[in-house]
Amino acid sequence: MSTSPVLQELGVVHRRVVRPDAAAVEKLSRFGVSTVHEAMGRLGLMAPRIRPIHPEASFCGTAITVLLQPGDNWMLHVAAEQIQAGDVVVAACTADCTDGFFGDLLATSFKARGCKGLVIDGGVRDVRDLCAMDFPVFSRAIHSKGTIKATLGSVNVPVVCANALVNPGDVIVADIDGVVVVPASRAQQVADAAEAREGNEAAKRVRFAAGELGLDMYAMREPLAKAGLRYVD
Amino acid sequence: MSTSPVLQELGVVHRRVVRPDAAAVEKLSRFGVSTVHEAMGRLGLMAPRIRPIHPEASFCGTAITVLLQPGDNWMLHVAAEQIQAGDVVVAACTADCTDGFFGDLLATSFKARGCKGLVIDGGVRDVRDLCAMDFPVFSRAIHSKGTIKATLGSVNVPVVCANALVNPGDVIVADIDGVVVVPASRAQQVADAAEAREGNEAAKRVRFAAGELGLDMYAMREPLAKAGLRYVD
Amino acid sequence: MSTSPVLQELGVVHRRVVRPDAAAVEKLSRFGVSTVHEAMGRLGLMAPRIRPIHPEASFCGTAITVLLQPGDNWMLHVAAEQIQAGDVVVAACTADCTDGFFGDLLATSFKARGCKGLVIDGGVRDVRDLCAMDFPVFSRAIHSKGTIKATLGSVNVPVVCANALVNPGDVIVADIDGVVVVPASRAQQVADAAEAREGNEAAKRVRFAAGELGLDMYAMREPLAKAGLRYVD
Amino acid sequence: MSTSPVLQELGVVHRRVVRPDAAAVEKLSRFGVSTVHEAMGRLGLMAPRIRPIHPEASFCGTAITVLLQPGDNWMLHVAAEQIQAGDVVVAACTADCTDGFFGDLLATSFKARGCKGLVIDGGVRDVRDLCAMDFPVFSRAIHSKGTIKATLGSVNVPVVCANALVNPGDVIVADIDGVVVVPASRAQQVADAAEAREGNEAAKRVRFAAGELGLDMYAMREPLAKAGLRYVD
Amino acid sequence: MSTSPVLQELGVVHRRVVRPDAAAVEKLSRFGVSTVHEAMGRLGLMAPRIRPIHPEASFCGTAITVLLQPGDNWMLHVAAEQIQAGDVVVAACTADCTDGFFGDLLATSFKARGCKGLVIDGGVRDVRDLCAMDFPVFSRAIHSKGTIKATLGSVNVPVVCANALVNPGDVIVADIDGVVVVPASRAQQVADAAEAREGNEAAKRVRFAAGELGLDMYAMREPLAKAGLRYVD
Amino acid sequence: MSTSPVLQELGVVHRRVVRPDAAAVEKLSRFGVSTVHEAMGRLGLMAPRIRPIHPEASFCGTAITVLLQPGDNWMLHVAAEQIQAGDVVVAACTADCTDGFFGDLLATSFKARGCKGLVIDGGVRDVRDLCAMDFPVFSRAIHSKGTIKATLGSVNVPVVCANALVNPGDVIVADIDGVVVVPASRAQQVADAAEAREGNEAAKRVRFAAGELGLDMYAMREPLAKAGLRYVD
Repeated sequence: MSTSPVLQELGVVHRRVVRPDAAAVEKLSRFGVSTVHEAMGRLGLMAPRIRPIHPEASFCGTAITVLLQPGDNWMLHVAAEQIQAGDVVVAACTADCTDGFFGDLLATSFKARGCKGLVIDGGVRDVRDLCAMDFPVFSRAIHSKGTIKATLGSVNVPVVCANALVNPGDVIVADIDGVVVVPASRAQQVADAAEAREGNEAAKRVRFAAGELGLDMYAMREPLAKAGLRYVD
Repeated sequence: MSTSPVLQELGVVHRRVVRPDAAAVEKLSRFGVSTVHEAMGRLGLMAPRIRPIHPEASFCGTAITVLLQPGDNWMLHVAAEQIQAGDVVVAACTADCTDGFFGDLLATSFKARGCKGLVIDGGVRDVRDLCAMDFPVFSRAIHSKGTIKATLGSVNVPVVCANALVNPGDVIVADIDGVVVVPASRAQQVADAAEAREGNEAAKRVRFAAGELGLDMYAMREPLAKAGLRYVD
Repeated sequence: MSTSPVLQELGVVHRRVVRPDAAAVEKLSRFGVSTVHEAMGRLGLMAPRIRPIHPEASFCGTAITVLLQPGDNWMLHVAAEQIQAGDVVVAACTADCTDGFFGDLLATSFKARGCKGLVIDGGVRDVRDLCAMDFPVFSRAIHSKGTIKATLGSVNVPVVCANALVNPGDVIVADIDGVVVVPASRAQQVADAAEAREGNEAAKRVRFAAGELGLDMYAMREPLAKAGLRYVD
Repeated sequence: MSTSPVLQELGVVHRRVVRPDAAAVEKLSRFGVSTVHEAMGRLGLMAPRIRPIHPEASFCGTAITVLLQPGDNWMLHVAAEQIQAGDVVVAACTADCTDGFFGDLLATSFKARGCKGLVIDGGVRDVRDLCAMDFPVFSRAIHSKGTIKATLGSVNVPVVCANALVNPGDVIVADIDGVVVVPASRAQQVADAAEAREGNEAAKRVRFAAGELGLDMYAMREPLAKAGLRYVD
Repeated sequence: MSTSPVLQELGVVHRRVVRPDAAAVEKLSRFGVSTVHEAMGRLGLMAPRIRPIHPEASFCGTAITVLLQPGDNWMLHVAAEQIQAGDVVVAACTADCTDGFFGDLLATSFKARGCKGLVIDGGVRDVRDLCAMDFPVFSRAIHSKGTIKATLGSVNVPVVCANALVNPGDVIVADIDGVVVVPASRAQQVADAAEAREGNEAAKRVRFAAGELGLDMYAMREPLAKAGLRYVD
Repeated sequence: MSTSPVLQELGVVHRRVVRPDAAAVEKLSRFGVSTVHEAMGRLGLMAPRIRPIHPEASFCGTAITVLLQPGDNWMLHVAAEQIQAGDVVVAACTADCTDGFFGDLLATSFKARGCKGLVIDGGVRDVRDLCAMDFPVFSRAIHSKGTIKATLGSVNVPVVCANALVNPGDVIVADIDGVVVVPASRAQQVADAAEAREGNEAAKRVRFAAGELGLDMYAMREPLAKAGLRYVD
């Protein structure tokens, strides 16, 4: 029998994750974070303190969520078992913490389960190995500080990670611009909107490259004048 | 008829920018930020929160200044029209803001106008594309957050950007060490001083490499002793 | 006649540094910061604000300590004379300061003395040159701001650098994960413990790669159940 | 006809807010933030960057939620109409922003509607007047920067404010220790747990005051010894 | 013979300061920082990191500007001599520094000269004494760290203090909302605009207190509807 | 048999603390933090992130040191037993952590043991009660976040707290200017130096109040001229 996950409830692992259609996830994976964010109506971003450990790091996958306690990475081991191919792990913490919750051993384990990457509102370590393994990680800090395994958090409950709400199964797109969360139920719609936007932008790029101004392309001269903009020679 | 630009006045675009002699700018472009900063008497630096989006990013050019409103990139489009080949854009904001004011479309437009780079006391996005385009950007943040076009700022008024005053036409030198502002009227003098310093440093580098100590090269032993330095074995 | 160095005493240079056995330092150099930190019982880390100027920067060496005054790099020149091959310089400051205390000239001097790198709780500059020289630097900031030579600090007194106590002769291991301080007297023991840990981890890595879960490898299922973890379908 | 509010949807005002039983809110108002946070199982806190503008500021009320755009306080005026006596306003922003969204005029309006206070992940101003009016405000910054009225946000959608999810109707308890969010559906249960905890603490306070140690009161000596704690004379 | 002051020039003291009409300064002193900032068209604010050392601290006066070197308060003594009754001192620094540049002795000296307060983009100390003396100070930090007297800065050159340009003679208004800079030449006009705004606000305050909504007072309902705002029951 | 405490060793409680002479501590208690810091030669300060929870908070006492693990306050209970009348508790943490390690119950216990206050490089809660009890606390944060009791730290080992080394028995002076650490062995000497300084300052205060300038009192005019200071009319 199933029970709906409760926000940040402690001590529970939800095994059932409703993931969006694979085709929608695949389609979202073709776009960058900024495009997806615009396609969502300028919503869904994590705070800019979350940065990639390597400039080339990027991924798109469905979220296994983890709620960590500060200084304790027990739940990341619990989460490993829930990972399916194509998932990413999103780890929030009940308090601000920069400890090194995650390193190359857990990355090896996650990767073996088909995990495509990690977002963590905490610290990570073994960064050279993580880069060598090509395992993309987005974190708030790099720090060697070791963690313990003593207190329960949860897996696959809704979490707030770096000021963004993440539900299990949501699509997470991450690249050098940051991290954006697409609710599972909106994946297809956002993917379609991203595609439309991208097409639109390609055309504009050509015109900008040819020297056309945004002032003309977007017909801004009149509204600027109306707003009172004065030109002085 | 011309009117002098006023500090951070809103709603105005000054079309006339007094740029320094091209030869002085070219000469300044041969030196790094730290050398230029020293040549100016240790003044002119922006705050260290302004960082390049890529370790190789660097430029030297004359400033088109922009005063932005938080969350609003309208004035960057207005600025595009004022860019001449060899200019760089320096964008300040009337409040602290990390939104993504600038991305690959604006970069394409700026580049098509001959712009050599951007310094912005705000956020930027499409960073992968900006790097691929080889368009150097120095910013306080990387963030996807989209902006609107609703409120007037200004173009080519004096602005305070990351704690440095920038007048239109000032020479901006930017590299991995940071960003320095050379007033247009001092461009030639600072370029000459930078050249003198650089020559001076080359000679010292050889002596240091050969094992000579700064203690001897700069005759520091006596002033240190006078200041009371004690050696203990 | 020898006098014991006193914490952060000003105006003194201790010439005698008790360095640990070279073999212990060499052995420590084989391990990363996170491994060494774990081998010390999860102690000894500097604060995560200290970051490498280049992702590949790393070193392992014995500390020459420097106590700087804010905005003043005089003592770095004094320290240069005390460097022996295999040493690294660890520079603390009597107050928070991001000025550019160190650049390519001092790096040339340090390198000529056999110095393997620098950790500084302050700013550095000439970063492009430092990278080109392959001189590894770990700092709290990159900033061009020049410094003066006016006030005495000390060399080879115990210092607190980025929240870690460093005694002259301590072994400093630094890489992309951060910086860890191994007291000279514990160098051999920590090196041995790091070796044991590394062997242990290699075996685990193979098992994780084969899909085994941490839950089983570390026998966590029972303690998790005891702690009350519930699984929901 | 009613539609469920969607997380951070833009351009919508939900008029219907399901508030918890008034008795539960009243009961929660008797306890401090730390007690309520513990009664919730150590969850529900906003990030510590949210601070009261006055040490005596505190409130307990039901949330009217607001989603602001950076630099734009339009939605606070929209929210005013939705306030009922006993409500508090919780304002999140789609991006990091310290502008002064709120001052004494809006406070006068909110107060006239029966509003008990404001939590805002942004800046406020007219702080002297707000204190004189005894209108309690919790914010991330104090800043005079004026805002515009140009872009839609929303009212009474779920928002993430300072890393905490807030649904309309949730109970917000705020005092000098910070801000905690009690989901409407858990208000009675948490109030009861807080009461139990408070009673429990009163007894302990008496014993502590009499000199009894936590080591004995909580029977910690045995687990400490088991964990390996050594006493050295 | 007079020479115009140059931005942040080092080693110079300008004795001549053009102060605005005393009546204009007196009139500005009747208004709070937020009102003055609005009256200037939402410009002129220092960054919000500048905070009063006491909630009641406030002043309005004409600026004596000081350019400090990090860790060095020599120029504050030089500035003391230039103070006239009604002046305030605005101290910027050539680099980020939180050292305690200013304490009760300098405050006693400044006060004896008729100085009305201090704004400093650095640290201060002896805070209890400063409060007891009723000498209002606005700073970026409170820190005991002592400073030296070794390097020249300047007095009465234009400085950038906490991201705001300040010219000698500008009017500085400071209170719990922050610090705003009114150019000397605009003092009368801004004072008049502030007065108009204040009158305007008094009327609004009465209407808000009576329960009228901003939605109606500012006729926002139509533009909100046009922007697409939807109400849901 | 006694063993010397080792820096930040884990799992140990040293019962023997060598406290300085009570008269020296009493004498130090007459001076403020800034005076003591100057009397120590401008050393010994904690970082300015440590702030009092109340502007009037202050104390002077001998340190019981605690090394905490992040999110775990077990060792504070262990420390309580080691407190003697006149002691203060100084709590460092093995990683950055803002959790609420300490509240009114522990304060009641500490106070009953004769404890004069707490310095903690972490968070505290129940701040209203702590103020009501007149128990002075200096912390890096105020946060309700509850902590666990699971991992060993230590009591009365040397710790690094907010970038300052603290040995058990050192004298800690804390007031609104910050926190300074006086090594036990230097207590008498520093107290005497502080007294001398204070007397000296009283005389200067009178002269400053009478309008004498620091320029004359400290004979700065000549060195300033020598350094090249120019006056311009």
